[in-house]
Amino acid sequence: MPAPTKAAIETVLDYADATLDASREALFDLLRIPSISAQPDRREDCLRAAEQVRANLAALGFAAETRPTKGLPVVVAHHPGPADYRGPHVLFYGHYDVQPVDPLDLWTSPPFEPRVANGPHGPRFVARGAVDDKGQVMMFLSALRAWHQAGGGIPARVTVLLEGEEEVGSVNLEPFLEAHKADLQADLVLISDTGMWDIDTPAITTSLRGLVFTEVKLRAAKRDLHSGLFGGSALNPINALCAALGGLHDAAGKIQLPGFYDGVREPDAARKAAWQALGFDEAAFLGAIGLRVPAGEHGRGALERLWARPTADINGIWGGYTGAGAKTVIPAEAFAKVSFRLVPGQDPDAVLDSFRRFLRTRVPEDAEVTVEALSAAPGIDLAADSLWSRAAQAVLGEEYGRPAVLMGSGGSIPVVSSFKRILGIDSLLMGFGLDDDQVHSPNEKFEQRCFHHGIRAHVRLLGRFAGG
Amino acid sequence: MPAPTKAAIETVLDYADATLDASREALFDLLRIPSISAQPDRREDCLRAAEQVRANLAALGFAAETRPTKGLPVVVAHHPGPADYRGPHVLFYGHYDVQPVDPLDLWTSPPFEPRVANGPHGPRFVARGAVDDKGQVMMFLSALRAWHQAGGGIPARVTVLLEGEEEVGSVNLEPFLEAHKADLQADLVLISDTGMWDIDTPAITTSLRGLVFTEVKLRAAKRDLHSGLFGGSALNPINALCAALGGLHDAAGKIQLPGFYDGVREPDAARKAAWQALGFDEAAFLGAIGLRVPAGEHGRGALERLWARPTADINGIWGGYTGAGAKTVIPAEAFAKVSFRLVPGQDPDAVLDSFRRFLRTRVPEDAEVTVEALSAAPGIDLAADSLWSRAAQAVLGEEYGRPAVLMGSGGSIPVVSSFKRILGIDSLLMGFGLDDDQVHSPNEKFEQRCFHHGIRAHVRLLGRFAGG
Repeated sequence: MPAPTKAAIETVLDYADATLDASREALFDLLRIPSISAQPDRREDCLRAAEQVRANLAALGFAAETRPTKGLPVVVAHHPGPADYRGPHVLFYGHYDVQPVDPLDLWTSPPFEPRVANGPHGPRFVARGAVDDKGQVMMFLSALRAWHQAGGGIPARVTVLLEGEEEVGSVNLEPFLEAHKADLQADLVLISDTGMWDIDTPAITTSLRGLVFTEVKLRAAKRDLHSGLFGGSALNPINALCAALGGLHDAAGKIQLPGFYDGVREPDAARKAAWQALGFDEAAFLGAIGLRVPAGEHGRGALERLWARPTADINGIWGGYTGAGAKTVIPAEAFAKVSFRLVPGQDPDAVLDSFRRFLRTRVPEDAEVTVEALSAAPGIDLAADSLWSRAAQAVLGEEYGRPAVLMGSGGSIPVVSSFKRILGIDSLLMGFGLDDDQVHSPNEKFEQRCFHHGIRAHVRLLGRFAGG
Repeated sequence: MPAPTKAAIETVLDYADATLDASREALFDLLRIPSISAQPDRREDCLRAAEQVRANLAALGFAAETRPTKGLPVVVAHHPGPADYRGPHVLFYGHYDVQPVDPLDLWTSPPFEPRVANGPHGPRFVARGAVDDKGQVMMFLSALRAWHQAGGGIPARVTVLLEGEEEVGSVNLEPFLEAHKADLQADLVLISDTGMWDIDTPAITTSLRGLVFTEVKLRAAKRDLHSGLFGGSALNPINALCAALGGLHDAAGKIQLPGFYDGVREPDAARKAAWQALGFDEAAFLGAIGLRVPAGEHGRGALERLWARPTADINGIWGGYTGAGAKTVIPAEAFAKVSFRLVPGQDPDAVLDSFRRFLRTRVPEDAEVTVEALSAAPGIDLAADSLWSRAAQAVLGEEYGRPAVLMGSGGSIPVVSSFKRILGIDSLLMGFGLDDDQVHSPNEKFEQRCFHHGIRAHVRLLGRFAGG
């Protein structure tokens, strides 16, 4: 098969346009399956979702399997592409699992009954998983289908890897990559799980923050105590936990763990200028969620804080009496979930060690402190000038008529470092989500316009890899 | 009826000894009713408990009623005593409600299936409410029964008032006292809800700490946020709550609310010497609950910290994700229950105002802070040299063969100030609990020895009021 001509690519794009309804229906079929990986009673649903995407890929001529792990299976599908293919071998990564839906009462329609709603940007799809990540996975599958139906076949050598445990920390993915190293070799990992700059402006994500997530337990007396009998003599672990965690930041928002900023690089002037040029409107960003005052480090720009500075957040806290009314208890224990978003250069293990020491030195000696690490992944920089990144920037420019923004991401995609470390492959992050997509929240949505452009961008990228 | 002779009192005491098993069974019948006032679904049980004590009193010849309030009813029972009675009119106060039982899994037997266990001091009663306050109420009722059966009748003019909302802040008691002022006149309030110095040493409690109990709510964004997308820009209310509450104390344990110590009196030298003479062993006190290091204000004695210094405690805290594993959420809200034990001289309303200002100045302006006051009662000093206190000291000395200790209490009995303010009556606090009774905790217990001596002490005190 020769390299596709411009006209051939246009034919595939036309087919994708003409079959947009079918693409949406294929997505809705997947969204109807409540594949919540966090909930053991949804295991059968997760298996059904895996089987459905496997069957979709098999129908396109892929050698597609669901392979077991200790948890939920991984879908792996191979297509060799044309016999004379000389472009890169693409490993597409996505996930078929979704977040839990609580609080359910805040959803305006049932989360697993996908529907088309109308918004300021036209039709949008509302369902759990609409954008994270079923919608983004189905864009790529729709692009493959368009090539399969209207372009003479899958134009590139493609491996698809879809896991079912991304929303629970990809706990079994690394062993899976280790075990299937030879079978998963490729030239790049293509991931569609990130966002655009705005609905008219495409983006490539070139850095990700890492994540250290911990659960802290502070134990004091061996039983709950009455504050009247013991208050003034017995250690209160909630008091102690607040006193310790209350010192995570100084008044200027700087994180106080010793050595925390070791390895954090200051962005160079060009990068700062590029961010400045984006004209990010933090007031509008915060206004949309009911806030007015930026809460991060003083003296840093908004995008710098979100993309290039580490954070410390208490994601959950509990202890003592939390019911209605008053109970004068000094509890035996107090707990918190504390996480750190890291930027490239920071060592997750060093951060974890420093946090443990920080707590130990700040709580009274009578308290027993334990810090369990639930994840520890570094921040990652992805080269924006690689061959594949430049190809993606080019097709996004063609598709949208304006250049792609090179964005940082404040979030973490830990698998990116797993692919690099275990398979030695760099990732390319080309995603089509928007900031207001309510990812992980009630009423998650995906704009049809983003979905449609995403399919077309993947059609173009596959064509370009094939030499078109 | 003439004043009882020593021999008559001995007869009543003998009867109390001989019927100790029946007294315990009457207590167990009451303990079997899960009258948890904090739980609306236990309302019927609370009504049953009220009716049971009412019936007990009616059986002794009291004119006994359960009278409604906006919440749970108050049991009021009157007995005129002998026609020629010249002693004080006693208003006995207690409560028939109990604390919630969670954490249930730490109970070694079901909390509402009372049982006799063996401990270092002999038999003990294990159940929720064993000592607080059903056990202490039933001591008084057993003493009345002994007089009724073996002493020729109730020897004194007695009103009994048992409320059902003590464990939820006695929210409806003050309006009740206002509404029934004329019917509740008496010369002293006798309360049996406090403790002994140790199992061999009786005590009269002569000061109580007050209590300001609050629920704090901190609201930030209008919905939960993903910490990857918003961390570094959006306010985290748990971070802010910990930072604010973490500053409640300085490194020396001093409470940091402006004006908090206004009105706090330094104990005089005599009082300090009396405390010193008690030889309180704080290491043993803390050791019994698994702690070693006193946690209160530096530079103060142990009893001074427990009885004569105010405290600040976070009794509960919650917000964000508290389930298993990791969820990178920045929640919209965070909550805490924060209370202050006050000493005589502090103004509860001023403390509340100061706490509100303290929080407002310490949380970012974007956060909405609300502080709901669930109770606000001052600390109280009770005269140890009143006629009635001296009578109680005398009977305790007779019963135990050693003088009663005049104790402070770190706890609060807000009704004491309600009785003083509304009815103009001073309270006498003669209680029989021990520090290790696990009040408000799993496996609450009451020593049979304390129960037995308590019945006998009440028999003696009633006899003394009758002139014996």
